[in-house]
Amino acid sequence: MTNYYGSKMVSLIDEFARLPGIGLKSAQRLAFHIIAMPKERVEQLSNAIVEAKEHIGYCKKCCTITDGDLCPICKDDTRDTSLIMVVEDSRDMVAYERTQEFKGTYHILQGAISPMMGVGPSDLKIKELLTRIQAGNVKEIIVATNPNIEGEATAMYISKLIKPLGIKTTRIAHGVPVGGDLEYVDEITLLRALQGRQVI
Amino acid sequence: MTNYYGSKMVSLIDEFARLPGIGLKSAQRLAFHIIAMPKERVEQLSNAIVEAKEHIGYCKKCCTITDGDLCPICKDDTRDTSLIMVVEDSRDMVAYERTQEFKGTYHILQGAISPMMGVGPSDLKIKELLTRIQAGNVKEIIVATNPNIEGEATAMYISKLIKPLGIKTTRIAHGVPVGGDLEYVDEITLLRALQGRQVI
Repeated sequence: MTNYYGSKMVSLIDEFARLPGIGLKSAQRLAFHIIAMPKERVEQLSNAIVEAKEHIGYCKKCCTITDGDLCPICKDDTRDTSLIMVVEDSRDMVAYERTQEFKGTYHILQGAISPMMGVGPSDLKIKELLTRIQAGNVKEIIVATNPNIEGEATAMYISKLIKPLGIKTTRIAHGVPVGGDLEYVDEITLLRALQGRQVI
Repeated sequence: MTNYYGSKMVSLIDEFARLPGIGLKSAQRLAFHIIAMPKERVEQLSNAIVEAKEHIGYCKKCCTITDGDLCPICKDDTRDTSLIMVVEDSRDMVAYERTQEFKGTYHILQGAISPMMGVGPSDLKIKELLTRIQAGNVKEIIVATNPNIEGEATAMYISKLIKPLGIKTTRIAHGVPVGGDLEYVDEITLLRALQGRQVI
């Protein structure tokens, strides 16, 4: 890229273009927006970035992303701590919270087993999950990792690890999404929906 | 948004979501990417933002965005300073530079007249253009503002201002884009292409 805008602008465009989902055109657009923004708004953005990185850690119990010792859900006395839903990511937890139906607690693995990406079981918060189980009082582990290859492999790995401990281990159901159109659902999902059919 | 991630994370997501072209989902994705990034990369991004805002100004001559007194094009002795192409934005200048054919200089208005957005002639770098013209030696002004309502209004305004000074003022041609398909070209463009027809 010829340096028409000066080196500071080029660095900024480069930095933006390294973020996920931002191509060179969007990066340019963002950079032009930044230099047109009031100085205090720019500092606010820059601080938010550094502060998030510095102050955000994992909940000591469920390993979700939070800025205190415990996340709001683990702090909440009304939640059923004998029921743990295992998810890959904090966003998955928030997705289930949106249903407003699940009253148990969560455990966030911070990823899924993926040999392709070099992510093994030791890179995930599985040790922390076992620690919670060993502390007693856990009745059921619901494995809600994503319904893809990595998520299924992780679910398999976790169930094999936990079953010998005598804890009930379940997996969220596969099936056709509500509001979807059968015509557009893939064969494997249709098959899983058939296998998982229930009496009405 | 319920504060599951902690306030620092929410601030970061909010800051990202205020940028152009970034919705809530993308903002979340960016924020999660940031906190997974190595600390030095995060600081690099944050510094690039602040530094760009602090050190970038306008070229003293053509008003493009640059971090020195003069931009690389205005510094270049081989460019023809008697020919000035007036564009709305630094990106438009870079677009014309990519043609590698234009050897004159540019003048960047930093916007276009838009009563809807509250942008009047005094908000643009028109005064600076007149100063350059009054300094003498200018033979032709090519008005290359965008071919939309704002750009046309701006072109009209500038030509009315400059013509009385006895300087040749031209507008880039409207017509069908090269590689385009006539079928998909709008009527006004087709009409302009017809009016602007040239002997082959």
